[in-house]
Amino acid sequence: MRTRIVPITIAVISWLAAIGGVHAADKEPIQPIPAVKIVNPAMVELGKKLFFEPRLSKSGVISCNSCHNLSMGGTDNIKTSIGHNWQKGPINSPTVLNSSMNLAQFWDGRAKDLKEQAGGPIANPGEMALTHELAIGMLLSIPAYRAEFEKVFNKDTINIDQVTQAIAAFEETLNTPNSRFDQWLKGDQNALKKDELAGYQLFKSSGCTGCHNGPAVGGNSFQKMGVVEPYKATSKSEGRWAVTGKDADRFNFKVPTLRNVELTYPYFHDGEAATLTQAVDTMGRLQLGRKFSADENAKLVGFLKTLTGDQPKIMLPILPPSGDSTPRPRPFE
Amino acid sequence: MRTRIVPITIAVISWLAAIGGVHAADKEPIQPIPAVKIVNPAMVELGKKLFFEPRLSKSGVISCNSCHNLSMGGTDNIKTSIGHNWQKGPINSPTVLNSSMNLAQFWDGRAKDLKEQAGGPIANPGEMALTHELAIGMLLSIPAYRAEFEKVFNKDTINIDQVTQAIAAFEETLNTPNSRFDQWLKGDQNALKKDELAGYQLFKSSGCTGCHNGPAVGGNSFQKMGVVEPYKATSKSEGRWAVTGKDADRFNFKVPTLRNVELTYPYFHDGEAATLTQAVDTMGRLQLGRKFSADENAKLVGFLKTLTGDQPKIMLPILPPSGDSTPRPRPFE
Repeated sequence: MRTRIVPITIAVISWLAAIGGVHAADKEPIQPIPAVKIVNPAMVELGKKLFFEPRLSKSGVISCNSCHNLSMGGTDNIKTSIGHNWQKGPINSPTVLNSSMNLAQFWDGRAKDLKEQAGGPIANPGEMALTHELAIGMLLSIPAYRAEFEKVFNKDTINIDQVTQAIAAFEETLNTPNSRFDQWLKGDQNALKKDELAGYQLFKSSGCTGCHNGPAVGGNSFQKMGVVEPYKATSKSEGRWAVTGKDADRFNFKVPTLRNVELTYPYFHDGEAATLTQAVDTMGRLQLGRKFSADENAKLVGFLKTLTGDQPKIMLPILPPSGDSTPRPRPFE
Repeated sequence: MRTRIVPITIAVISWLAAIGGVHAADKEPIQPIPAVKIVNPAMVELGKKLFFEPRLSKSGVISCNSCHNLSMGGTDNIKTSIGHNWQKGPINSPTVLNSSMNLAQFWDGRAKDLKEQAGGPIANPGEMALTHELAIGMLLSIPAYRAEFEKVFNKDTINIDQVTQAIAAFEETLNTPNSRFDQWLKGDQNALKKDELAGYQLFKSSGCTGCHNGPAVGGNSFQKMGVVEPYKATSKSEGRWAVTGKDADRFNFKVPTLRNVELTYPYFHDGEAATLTQAVDTMGRLQLGRKFSADENAKLVGFLKTLTGDQPKIMLPILPPSGDSTPRPRPFE
């Protein structure tokens, strides 16, 4: 089937490109989101359980999904997250959708990949406030978890490396292909409305694609927040500098993906832009030295909303019950 | 199909009952959980969205599912729930599973049905801490919700009655049929092990079925907590008395369902019994004036674990994004 269709599609696109009727997808700065290939379904299923597992927190109620809610674009849609004992987080929670495409994890890139990231919040006293030791103790006390880890890892032990590897394996499945923009990239001219296409042209011509490019429309570089004029953040984070110690990295942050950006409000590392209109305006002024007109802003926002892809279909996992010896949560300590 | 099978099944059961090989299901004090009939799938789907909707809370992060987690037996598995600003709830959150079978809702039965119950936590300052007016304003500001309510209710308005009706319609689907005990009730003699069956016989003979009976194994009466000796609760609740004002109702609570009781720890209205072993021991002493031996206790617990049914299969809903005019959550106010 594929071998017959592909050459025809390419031929049609080439012909349309030649007569100026459409782009050639391979010349665009943005590429379609690749489809997910699940290599190890048992590990993904275990990782899904752990992603939804509130017993990985001291309180027993905060899971990965609390701040990276898969009902809501993989975010919590508040400026900064709520941690154990209602602590206010220092920075906006980025989306977990398409996060495997990031060059590194966290806004400052301090974790090299999803596996390294996943261990952070569990043990962060301001977030899930457990320790890795207690997390492992909890899992070991539950026979159904012991059996599932053994099935997946072929070892009669559970350690934090396995936990984070499984969570990462699940997160790697959270791609959102098939956005209208991707349909357009693949040659469906009717996938975008005229104004949305005009928005994309403006997105390119005004320089947004300098940072927001690639399949994730971002996520692949660190850039200074506030190039033309400084950004007055409410967050105290100084970004990449905290990792490298280099002065040049001060206020450098990982460029966020714009995939599903319609769903991942509020925007910026401090979550201070409530709407896309506001975020586009700020980006134009601070990064490009350009004040977009209301019409331009609307076109850009229209384009950005075409980046919403198919959300992952998640069957809510049923978690195995605690045993008599499972340590109980301590929500009010 | 059904007309052919049922008479044969009844005939077999009657015959087995006659020779003493099995119980007659209709003579047992517990009946199987009925299968769910979905009358209005569109309303159920809307109700599911609302059940998972954290924007029904002031913080934007607490949904019905936060305290009635469908990954964990429809409970949060902590003594008392965590409300807005990490407030400690006054009472243990009961399971939402099979809750449509309860004679009334809440431990004190102050809501006559699920619809009446659903409005409570949204507006409770110690729980989700929103108001019904703000909840409706939020929903009205989101075009996808407006469209979905109009489709379901055939009216171009949204009000709290519709919201609670839809949530209740979803909750009515959360039955858990097909537990091993129900398989046994329906005639499968191999569904229970010998000790589990002995546990059930003891459950009946020692009087537990006086209160824990019917399809939900409870949920159908109010009873005094502490019949033989008083219960020293850590909760200040005086139960049904708060609703009726009658002295005789002091410390009367709705008898909880024992369906899925393996999953719904900790137990009692104050959540002070961490394990089933402990709960069975306390119930024996306080309600029946009987100290179960370790062997009896283990048999009773073994039986109780056969009441875990098929958990509802929930495809995580994708919630429509807030619009520019949607009021933002206020997590830290």
